[in-house]
Amino acid sequence: MLLPLLPSGTEREREREGMEEEQLPKTGTRGRPIRCRAAIAREAGVPLTIEEVVVAPPKAHEVRIKIICTSLCQSDITYWKMKDPPAVFPRILGHEAIGVVESVGENVKEVKEGDVVIPTFIADCQECEHCKSPKSNKCAKLPFKVSPWMPRDGTTRFTDSKGEVIYHFINVSSFSEYTVVDIAHVTKVDPSVPPNKACLLSCGISTGVGAALKTAKVEAGSTVAIFGLGAIGLAVAEGARLCGASRIVGVDVNPNKFEIGKKFGVTDFINPKECGSRRISEVILDMTDGGADYCFECVGLASLVHEAFACCRMGWGKTIVLGVDKPGTQLSISSYEILHHGKCLMGSLFGDIKAKSDIPLLLNRYMDKELELDKFVTHEVHFEDINTAFDLLIHGKSIRSVIWMDK
Amino acid sequence: MLLPLLPSGTEREREREGMEEEQLPKTGTRGRPIRCRAAIAREAGVPLTIEEVVVAPPKAHEVRIKIICTSLCQSDITYWKMKDPPAVFPRILGHEAIGVVESVGENVKEVKEGDVVIPTFIADCQECEHCKSPKSNKCAKLPFKVSPWMPRDGTTRFTDSKGEVIYHFINVSSFSEYTVVDIAHVTKVDPSVPPNKACLLSCGISTGVGAALKTAKVEAGSTVAIFGLGAIGLAVAEGARLCGASRIVGVDVNPNKFEIGKKFGVTDFINPKECGSRRISEVILDMTDGGADYCFECVGLASLVHEAFACCRMGWGKTIVLGVDKPGTQLSISSYEILHHGKCLMGSLFGDIKAKSDIPLLLNRYMDKELELDKFVTHEVHFEDINTAFDLLIHGKSIRSVIWMDK
Repeated sequence: MLLPLLPSGTEREREREGMEEEQLPKTGTRGRPIRCRAAIAREAGVPLTIEEVVVAPPKAHEVRIKIICTSLCQSDITYWKMKDPPAVFPRILGHEAIGVVESVGENVKEVKEGDVVIPTFIADCQECEHCKSPKSNKCAKLPFKVSPWMPRDGTTRFTDSKGEVIYHFINVSSFSEYTVVDIAHVTKVDPSVPPNKACLLSCGISTGVGAALKTAKVEAGSTVAIFGLGAIGLAVAEGARLCGASRIVGVDVNPNKFEIGKKFGVTDFINPKECGSRRISEVILDMTDGGADYCFECVGLASLVHEAFACCRMGWGKTIVLGVDKPGTQLSISSYEILHHGKCLMGSLFGDIKAKSDIPLLLNRYMDKELELDKFVTHEVHFEDINTAFDLLIHGKSIRSVIWMDK
Repeated sequence: MLLPLLPSGTEREREREGMEEEQLPKTGTRGRPIRCRAAIAREAGVPLTIEEVVVAPPKAHEVRIKIICTSLCQSDITYWKMKDPPAVFPRILGHEAIGVVESVGENVKEVKEGDVVIPTFIADCQECEHCKSPKSNKCAKLPFKVSPWMPRDGTTRFTDSKGEVIYHFINVSSFSEYTVVDIAHVTKVDPSVPPNKACLLSCGISTGVGAALKTAKVEAGSTVAIFGLGAIGLAVAEGARLCGASRIVGVDVNPNKFEIGKKFGVTDFINPKECGSRRISEVILDMTDGGADYCFECVGLASLVHEAFACCRMGWGKTIVLGVDKPGTQLSISSYEILHHGKCLMGSLFGDIKAKSDIPLLLNRYMDKELELDKFVTHEVHFEDINTAFDLLIHGKSIRSVIWMDK
């Protein structure tokens, strides 16, 4: 299913020649604006345009990164489609990536030029109560916002060729050859890791795997139900497999997900469209003889959270919400069921992953061939073809497309 | 605050003389009906009447117990006041007790005549998946119901002097000199324990202490908020104290609870009536600088669960529901808050206590002077004065009244 990579032909090289000279002057780029290419979302739902942008040098606590490759996550699509705030245009989307530090701003000691790093939408300031605690990844110093700006000083580092402001996206904006990221959002990694796999750990795969390993703490031999077999749902399956779950039930309306799911250890499949008058929860309660030990909602629909909660096992069942629902959505949970059934409802933002400590651990598990990242990458495309990656994901044809910036 | 105990005078002895001869014949009572006194709830909200009842011998899997003493729990009042089903009359209420095994039915090997036992409303069959698991106390073989009958055969063991049926109450019915309880609801305990303290472990105190120790697993140094400082809320405080919580915030509309709360380690007190326009959760968020690590709702009001959830700490806060709300109540929880704030919502039925293993452990901690049961007993009354115990609890004047059957 991999798209053939375009040959690194001379045509493309010639196209970019003029820009590259200015972009990478022999005297170095440190402290100077960089002109490079970025894929800009100028309007909701309209294909991205690859344009020349100017990326300002990093300010204090900031790092300028030359992106090696970036993968496409569903949240990029969500904010690309969204017409109203918190969406904002023009914007450089993208938040699953890996790159090389081009230069650092003041007060940055943690990384230096040439280091390979993974940017993450969630901060790990390592100073606040949350970052210091092993129990939380909800940085209080730089709390998560769908921020249009750099987190500390509230300004942009991007302008277009006309000098107009371009907005950032959740602290990363990786659909650009160069981007500026706050050091709290940067994790240094082993430079020998394959970048097209490592970039997946910036968001979706870490989220799913972390939800199983860290939030739910799935136990060996247990039964897991996953609502929604997109990349995050499949990553939950991967995490559950790592934990030794003996049965993994996948729920999805797309029957093609069954064959894909099998590669991730999904043992049973439910298509809600084929349940007739029965609720999904009834089907799962029956097939698991009393409910799944862990239910993961990866779609972002209150109705599915209710189904997940209804079929998580009495006594100790946990329902974990990973899906992002519409703002303002309220979940309606029976007080009796909470008290009498011993079930637990909880969320998992970024899989409770603490970027700077956990991403290197996950990478180690990948290098040790435990965590199977390869099977998530179904497509690889050139940066020029970024809109193809959008099409593939929108039509449910890809799990992860890796977008190479310079290949 | 202890009510003086009536002298065990000759008047009372004479009153009961005729009955006692029949009740405890020299040839033993085993296998025969026992005539004894019971406090019967004949009508919703009408004082109990002490009457002669006939207690049938135990059938298979059953134990007939001579109650030593029983304490009064809020649930007895709830079901005494309730006019409609699941309330049923005439009924023998009471479910916090300790007694001596008078005789056992077939298939009972676990206890024998003369053993001191604590009956519990929740079963511990020791055979089902839940009873075998350390993670659950929700017996699947004999699941909790507000049962009017004996659990296995669906009949009563009580009739009144006219031969009319009297209903059981949540598998215990301890407001009777003798009662019949299923062996799954019976825990054998050390006969040297003071019965007027040990009986508290049948329900309320185990529930509160267990919610802190077993459900929430309160950590040393953490901050706890307790909504409702009745016996269960105070027992949560006692459990939190045992866990080494450094700050315990108590919420109650009754300002008298402040002084009482101090004895249980409550460090701060909030009277919702004195919060003005501020929500309780706002006050707690301020005073704890970001929320309590553990919030316990012990009243049974959805609005208080919402307040508790709102002020439990981002990152790892747990909200534990202990209060019994009206049937059908739905809790409304923000999907965003579940996902983004890392909070957990869970219930605690009987404090996740597994009767047969945990009650002896709690009794050991009492005997070792760790668990302070004594401070829960504010009043002791004769069985004849059982309605006084009701009045004291209804008017918030008692925490636990112990009702002695034969003193």
